Amino acid sequence: MGVVIPLEDGKQRDASVKPLVAKTRGDMERVNQLILSKAGSDVAMIPEVANHLISSGGKRLRPMLTLASATMFGYSGEHHIKLATAVEFMHTATLLHDDVVDESDLRRGRSTARMIWGNQASVLVGDFLLGQAFKMMVEVGSLEALDVLSSAAAVIAEGEVLQLSVAKNMETTEDDYLSVIRAKTAALFSAACEVGPIVADAGKAERNALRSYGINLGLAFQLIDDVLDYDGSASDLGKNVGDDFREGKITLPVVLAYRRGSEDERSFWREAIEGGNSDDKALEKALGLIAKYGGLKDTTARAEHYASIARDALAPLPDSEEKAALLEVIAFCINRAS
Amino acid sequence: MGVVIPLEDGKQRDASVKPLVAKTRGDMERVNQLILSKAGSDVAMIPEVANHLISSGGKRLRPMLTLASATMFGYSGEHHIKLATAVEFMHTATLLHDDVVDESDLRRGRSTARMIWGNQASVLVGDFLLGQAFKMMVEVGSLEALDVLSSAAAVIAEGEVLQLSVAKNMETTEDDYLSVIRAKTAALFSAACEVGPIVADAGKAERNALRSYGINLGLAFQLIDDVLDYDGSASDLGKNVGDDFREGKITLPVVLAYRRGSEDERSFWREAIEGGNSDDKALEKALGLIAKYGGLKDTTARAEHYASIARDALAPLPDSEEKAALLEVIAFCINRAS
Repeated sequence: MGVVIPLEDGKQRDASVKPLVAKTRGDMERVNQLILSKAGSDVAMIPEVANHLISSGGKRLRPMLTLASATMFGYSGEHHIKLATAVEFMHTATLLHDDVVDESDLRRGRSTARMIWGNQASVLVGDFLLGQAFKMMVEVGSLEALDVLSSAAAVIAEGEVLQLSVAKNMETTEDDYLSVIRAKTAALFSAACEVGPIVADAGKAERNALRSYGINLGLAFQLIDDVLDYDGSASDLGKNVGDDFREGKITLPVVLAYRRGSEDERSFWREAIEGGNSDDKALEKALGLIAKYGGLKDTTARAEHYASIARDALAPLPDSEEKAALLEVIAFCINRAS
Repeated sequence: MGVVIPLEDGKQRDASVKPLVAKTRGDMERVNQLILSKAGSDVAMIPEVANHLISSGGKRLRPMLTLASATMFGYSGEHHIKLATAVEFMHTATLLHDDVVDESDLRRGRSTARMIWGNQASVLVGDFLLGQAFKMMVEVGSLEALDVLSSAAAVIAEGEVLQLSVAKNMETTEDDYLSVIRAKTAALFSAACEVGPIVADAGKAERNALRSYGINLGLAFQLIDDVLDYDGSASDLGKNVGDDFREGKITLPVVLAYRRGSEDERSFWREAIEGGNSDDKALEKALGLIAKYGGLKDTTARAEHYASIARDALAPLPDSEEKAALLEVIAFCINRAS
């Protein structure tokens, strides 16, 4: 099921997140310390649950984006550390609540917090991390950053509810689906990037550039995630091929295969996604239909579209190591599916 | 089971929340409009779930406290409307998440949102309302108010987790229990009151007075709520006598009866609360033991202690209609149990 992508820039074939990691290493150490300290509580269950998720090996892409988005405009204070931590806490809180909502048993190959400590702890520790995130933002004291991040929080939650109401509805259009991932995933990427130029006191054009980079990177990132869920060659996710299918999740490869299919094939999808007939045999058929209609190739092409917009968003900015690292992250996201 | 309380002030026997309602009526109309508008969303499920809870006939005590705490210092702008709405949204979000955590079927005599729309919608709409609350606070633009309210949000969530970890543990002390309700209930009362003098640009002494009033009123309020749950004469709650008992909730009347009881009686409590043997027969025995050891009378006495502190907190402030109304609310809270 490997998909070959025509890259605009051949040199980016081995694109990696490493330059971003290297550039933000010192700051990320401080973020990690702040994460541990702010996830601490006399209530023992809070650090237990929080650390389970925090230590589970996520890439921490979002806080790295915040750090690089601040230092690329010459920022050298402390505020970006707190904002990066707040962004990671918002993300972690969303994961905790998502696992409850999706009734997920596994995340990144490990038991979810709700399987170990129960739904109750997952809901409440999520609330606690969100509260700590807001406290850190308030400590930074930038009303502009607060505006960006609190708006993102509201949009993310709205997107989650929207996803609930489009869930298992095969008539979901590509636009409906984009609305969901724009809110659920891209809004936090966008906010994570936009607060960088804000704390660095950069200009409006720079803020707009980073916001646009973030939202389009987020869309590309999520679309490639959707591809990887149906791509047998991906093994670094702690997910199995077809997890989304088995959970009846509607993602773009499915939307495309459904809309391009025959009436018989559409019946199959409805029975699988809406009716829950999603066993291994059904998954095999689903993979065949997605391949038949180019669902993965074209989802990747859509992702490349947003990746291009993200590249162009950064284009006018002066060259810097951060800019190069952020550009390479775009290529890295896309290449995961190749 | 009616409990007679010696009131310090005989004239407060018919104390009521009415003066507060009358004093804040005009502003509350604007709060109610803002609630409806900010609970709105293109995602239809959001206003449905939110309005279910919002229209369920709560007294809206918290936003009224914010409004009166601002106007008593001469405030005449718009910010207190937004902050009062944010406070009510924080409260509503907490209720939505609480019902999921407690697996409650009924609230104020109506089906909980989770029974109608599911746990998923309750978690996510709660998150949405919290996001909207923070957005409104940011719009107000007072970093001091943001600090107070975001700290309260973190404390509330921490208290909920704490409650989870002391749940069904009969060795819970009165101090443990107070820590829980201080965080779960009193922190929001306190924040609701403190942001009033903040937006009104009142002095530090006034802020401290209103914060102290709020936290102690909140403690008294919650303790009386605990009494009412075991008091057959209370019928205006949409709750049945013994709901807390059946859910295995530890409240102060139970803590007192347990600690004052014989070893046999303590065994009974452990089987009931920790072991779940809480049928009607067990409830009858529990009511008898609580009466035997003065659990309701003494819980009410504890509440009166905090009520006194709340009264003294306001004492140095100049007389005003708002001050009189806030003082009467204290007496009203206590009198509910008499």
